[in-house]
Amino acid sequence: MPARLILGIDPGSLATGWGVLSCEGSRLKAVSCGVIRPREKIFNRRLLEIHESLEKIIAAHSPAEAAVESLFFQKNAQSALKLGHVRGVAVLACLQGGLAVSEYSPAEVKQALTGHGRAEKAQVARMIQILLGLPKPPPSDAADALAVAVTHAHAGPAVLRGGPKGAG
Amino acid sequence: MPARLILGIDPGSLATGWGVLSCEGSRLKAVSCGVIRPREKIFNRRLLEIHESLEKIIAAHSPAEAAVESLFFQKNAQSALKLGHVRGVAVLACLQGGLAVSEYSPAEVKQALTGHGRAEKAQVARMIQILLGLPKPPPSDAADALAVAVTHAHAGPAVLRGGPKGAG
Repeated sequence: MPARLILGIDPGSLATGWGVLSCEGSRLKAVSCGVIRPREKIFNRRLLEIHESLEKIIAAHSPAEAAVESLFFQKNAQSALKLGHVRGVAVLACLQGGLAVSEYSPAEVKQALTGHGRAEKAQVARMIQILLGLPKPPPSDAADALAVAVTHAHAGPAVLRGGPKGAG
Repeated sequence: MPARLILGIDPGSLATGWGVLSCEGSRLKAVSCGVIRPREKIFNRRLLEIHESLEKIIAAHSPAEAAVESLFFQKNAQSALKLGHVRGVAVLACLQGGLAVSEYSPAEVKQALTGHGRAEKAQVARMIQILLGLPKPPPSDAADALAVAVTHAHAGPAVLRGGPKGAG
């Protein structure tokens, strides 16, 4: 059975975390991860930069699945609108690349990683370090992206819709 | 002086209005307009459909400028998040096409069209019909898109940033 490759994304206009996770049976491995920090000052142009960066990451690793934080529990309408823009172009890049997109709330991710829904950011990064056998905790946003990918890996066998290995 | 071509967009996940306005001095003309109504039921896939439709519209008309409703006055966080996604992929399509993107709030658009900020939707459509000499009022979402394009046309000489005719 070939390894499943899952791209985790934690969207944000200043910092969008990403992580590619390889998943062979119960064996999880961090293939690569990082943080997209747009240089553009203009919000709209940041969207272009985030979209382009994700396109490159998808082209470089060819993951078949994506897992994105859902963010559907925002309270502030203005920040929800901004995050929506970023999340929209992130999901678009995944769909354009043929990835099957799944969504998990921050609480689901924390629950999957630490067993409860209220973990601190540093705690998530530390769990990711241990779980994936990394020499040190990844940057916070990259850790969050890997965490959502791990959550997806644990969520059971993938239903691949239109992915490169499209078995669904 | 060649006519300025302005693409107006009124983003929405169920209906995204669009309108191409030609602007020669003070002479405004509706070149084309319509409403993108995604057939997809899944929200994320609607984004793909809206983005693809806008790409086709931009390729067909080659506008140098885009005017988009700003929506930065949402009160409900959940609907703001959804609208953000749609607006994000709409702005992305414009920037990818090299258009200079300007933004106007609904109140600015109504003010520009009717002289006050609280016009009804039907009133905006009627004003657009009269202003552009159309045989009948366009569908409401297309009228809103033409209205934001008209607002931009009235806002003074364009500063073209990175547009095909890039004079800026």
